[in-house]
Amino acid sequence: MPHIPTPPNTAGIGSLLSFRPETAKPLMELAQALLRGESSLSPGERELIAAFVSSKNNCEFCTRSHAATAWHLPGNTKGLVLSVLADLESSPISTKLKALLTIASKVQQNGSSVTNEVINHARELGATDIEIHDTVLIAAAFCMYNRYVDGLAAVTPTDDEVYDRMGKHLAENGYGKR
Amino acid sequence: MPHIPTPPNTAGIGSLLSFRPETAKPLMELAQALLRGESSLSPGERELIAAFVSSKNNCEFCTRSHAATAWHLPGNTKGLVLSVLADLESSPISTKLKALLTIASKVQQNGSSVTNEVINHARELGATDIEIHDTVLIAAAFCMYNRYVDGLAAVTPTDDEVYDRMGKHLAENGYGKR
Repeated sequence: MPHIPTPPNTAGIGSLLSFRPETAKPLMELAQALLRGESSLSPGERELIAAFVSSKNNCEFCTRSHAATAWHLPGNTKGLVLSVLADLESSPISTKLKALLTIASKVQQNGSSVTNEVINHARELGATDIEIHDTVLIAAAFCMYNRYVDGLAAVTPTDDEVYDRMGKHLAENGYGKR
Repeated sequence: MPHIPTPPNTAGIGSLLSFRPETAKPLMELAQALLRGESSLSPGERELIAAFVSSKNNCEFCTRSHAATAWHLPGNTKGLVLSVLADLESSPISTKLKALLTIASKVQQNGSSVTNEVINHARELGATDIEIHDTVLIAAAFCMYNRYVDGLAAVTPTDDEVYDRMGKHLAENGYGKR
C-alpha cells in the first residue's frame, strides 16, 4: 500500500503525479527533454539507459515500464533489451553504448564514482560531450524517479501485459501527455 | 576539471545548466516547485532537507550551497544548520522535522529503505501526507542533483564566502531566475 493516498486504479509514478500536480509538471517535462528531446542518442538508446539504471536501483516498476518502452522503439528488440539488463558485457550492443551504460552504472553508485577513465573510454569509442552529459543526467534522473516511486511505495503491477501496454504508449506518445 | 566543457568563471550546477539549456529549464522549475512552492514546510526546512541529503551523498558543492541557503532563510541559524549536518539526533530541531529528515536519509539509501515504521513515526509527530510526499521527493531530487554535479565533476569552490553569497542569493531569489 502506498505511503500516501493515491487515486484508485492508478499505479507507479502516475499515481504520485496525480497526488501533486505542481511537481508533476517539471518532472514530466524533464523526462520528455531527456528521453525524447533532440539528441544524437536515439530514444531507444536513452530508454535503455533509463531501464538499466532502474534495474541497478532495484525499482521494479521503472525497470519493467522503461524496458518495455525501449523494446517498442526503433533499433531495439525485446531480446536485446533483456540481454542488456541480464548482462551488459555479453549483450549485443555497440561498444560505445556499452561504455555509456558503464558511465550510467557509476552514476547510479554515486557521482564521484565517475572516473576520468570511464569518461575517456567512452570518448575513444566515439561518445560526444552532449552524449556524456545526457547519459549522466538520465542516470541521475532515474536515481530520483526510482526513489520517488519506491520511497512512497507506489503500486507495482505484476502482470507483464500491463508493462508492455504502458511501454507501447510511452514509445508512441512520450511524456508530454498523460 | 569537469568532464564536459563548461563556460569560464562558472561553478557547480550552474556551469552544467549553461551547457544544456533544454534540460536546465525543467531542472530549475522542479527546484523552485519543491523548495519554494506552496507547502506547509517552510523554505528553510526544505533547504535543510536538501543540504542534509547532499551531505549524505558527499556532494560538497550542493551541501555547502544549500546549507548556506538554509541559514539565510527565516527560522534557521548557521549554528542550527551545521548542528543538523554534524549530528541529526542531538540537533535542536523539532521531533517532526527530525522524523522527516530520517525519512530523507532512508530515501538517500534507496527507495525501498523507506519503511512503514519511519513513515508512521513521522505521522505520529504531526507530519501530513503532503509533507511526507515532499520530503521523499526533495530527497530523491537531491540524489539526482548531487549525481549530476559530481558525475560531471563540476567545479567545486573551496572558499566559504562563495557559498555564503550563493546561499544569500538563493534565499532571496529562489530558482526562478539565474
